[in-house]
Amino acid sequence: MTEETAGAQPILRPALKVVDATLRDGGLVNDFRFSDDFVRALYAADLAAGVDYMEVGYKADRDIFDEIKFGKWKFCRDEDVAAVLGGRTSRMKLACMADVGRCNFRRDICAKGNSPIDMYRIATYADTIPEAIGMLEYCDKLGYETTVNIMAISRESVETVQRTLDMLGGSPAKAIYLVDSYGALYPDGVRALAETYLAAGQKYQKEIGIHAHNNQNLAFANTITCCGAGVNYLDATVSGMGRGAGNCALELLLGYLKGRFDLSPVLAFLEAGHMQRLKEAGAMWGYDLAYLVTGLYNRHPSAAIGYYKDARMDISAFLKEVSSS
Amino acid sequence: MTEETAGAQPILRPALKVVDATLRDGGLVNDFRFSDDFVRALYAADLAAGVDYMEVGYKADRDIFDEIKFGKWKFCRDEDVAAVLGGRTSRMKLACMADVGRCNFRRDICAKGNSPIDMYRIATYADTIPEAIGMLEYCDKLGYETTVNIMAISRESVETVQRTLDMLGGSPAKAIYLVDSYGALYPDGVRALAETYLAAGQKYQKEIGIHAHNNQNLAFANTITCCGAGVNYLDATVSGMGRGAGNCALELLLGYLKGRFDLSPVLAFLEAGHMQRLKEAGAMWGYDLAYLVTGLYNRHPSAAIGYYKDARMDISAFLKEVSSS
Repeated sequence: MTEETAGAQPILRPALKVVDATLRDGGLVNDFRFSDDFVRALYAADLAAGVDYMEVGYKADRDIFDEIKFGKWKFCRDEDVAAVLGGRTSRMKLACMADVGRCNFRRDICAKGNSPIDMYRIATYADTIPEAIGMLEYCDKLGYETTVNIMAISRESVETVQRTLDMLGGSPAKAIYLVDSYGALYPDGVRALAETYLAAGQKYQKEIGIHAHNNQNLAFANTITCCGAGVNYLDATVSGMGRGAGNCALELLLGYLKGRFDLSPVLAFLEAGHMQRLKEAGAMWGYDLAYLVTGLYNRHPSAAIGYYKDARMDISAFLKEVSSS
Repeated sequence: MTEETAGAQPILRPALKVVDATLRDGGLVNDFRFSDDFVRALYAADLAAGVDYMEVGYKADRDIFDEIKFGKWKFCRDEDVAAVLGGRTSRMKLACMADVGRCNFRRDICAKGNSPIDMYRIATYADTIPEAIGMLEYCDKLGYETTVNIMAISRESVETVQRTLDMLGGSPAKAIYLVDSYGALYPDGVRALAETYLAAGQKYQKEIGIHAHNNQNLAFANTITCCGAGVNYLDATVSGMGRGAGNCALELLLGYLKGRFDLSPVLAFLEAGHMQRLKEAGAMWGYDLAYLVTGLYNRHPSAAIGYYKDARMDISAFLKEVSSS
């Protein structure tokens, strides 16, 4: 075979960035209880693989989330992050996510100079863009790179998507993310959306990112579809670890991009048993029938997460519930 | 969301056919040891779901394959198939696969009138097309529908693909299948190949089919990519059961095509535990790292199948072996 029959490899654009969101999206699976060894080993693997950003968790508001119930990567205090990953000077940057309405950013996000975090990713729904812009401007003024991640985009109309992009066009965000929170998008649909985002990116001089979910086993396909369309910020997680059906698997993506990234450090990380131990401790994620159902009907995955939490086995009834809701 | 953002649903072309290959490709996983109850239940589910063809197995040569070592669906004697599925008059048709060089077709394939099989699918590599044509003509003369499935297409050059299609253009095959045996193809590549096949299909008045493997978790994506391009024969299997990394999952495909097919009978089949019992009996298939490696490097999956058979856990070494072979 040559590249002709396999499928065109992406032009490995310098602007292309891979973001490892394992700790952040994976943290939603195991309440952010990652050991320091795990985090350091993941950092080393990501760095060796050529990953551009490692997202270390959320900057969640401890007045909303009980610190006892979560590992420290839910809150990403600068000193906690620095204790594990500080002192490293490397090409790879650290990112952290802040949800609109769930982050006391004025109290908790300090000037960049004192922080191991390089980039804040502001997560918002389409109806809280002004708040997101407020957070973006705040973080930008403090010296951070920023992205804005517009969640659950599959539930929005084309008009809302466009309006949202136009509102964000003047924000300091370096990249605007297309986020398929529900895992509802098919490759054709994600390409069409990506083209809309890319047109806005062109207009407002911003990069575009993709964060896919695997409800219909399309996270990787949708990610590389967006990549082919010109989307440069690509999220992935080791073993696709992430809420519900999980994400685009980093090992699949690095394999696809093997002209520029190196799959072997991530395979070595897996071989060392890091993910296996998480599973043995009870962490569960990945494509399964209930996630297929919520993704297919474009519903929030919470119903499917609940299905598995309640150890339900009546998938036919679940299909009826979701399809008629 | 509307169809706009989700992704255009395929125009549900009347010519579009879904082929359930569970017994045939799944049989490669469990040596075709499916109980009569399983087969009847699968038939009923497929029929209720709207599936067009159920592929019941191979017409393998018992002089090559020891009958003791396989279930009867490896050989698909007309009387054995009829005993389980005979007497049914339904819209859904039965198919059977015959490999070039592994089927004593002149001895074992009899006139259509006496057979519960409606269609023979001739599986060939690109270098045994004359033999495949011989089998196609034989089956056609006996009154069967036929398709020709060109395996491991990812290892062939563009020129070989074209030459093969031109050779088959004059054959009686109703459909020519693009078969990604190695799971090496990406959506862009499979679309380009599909377009080549479709051009030949247009020229020679044949349909085109897709049979994908899931080494890089792209079987479903590749299948719907082909569907979008105009490919009308779509293979899938329940739970993606099939050799190695398995196939496009029927439940994913029927969900995608929900304007015309009904997912619920297949979910009911799954809920009844049929696939679970196969797994409990030791059947293993589906995306995993070693399959990713062989797919990524466009190798036959046998090395990965061997990796798991030998209970290896040294994926880094395996990557080195495969990437340097």
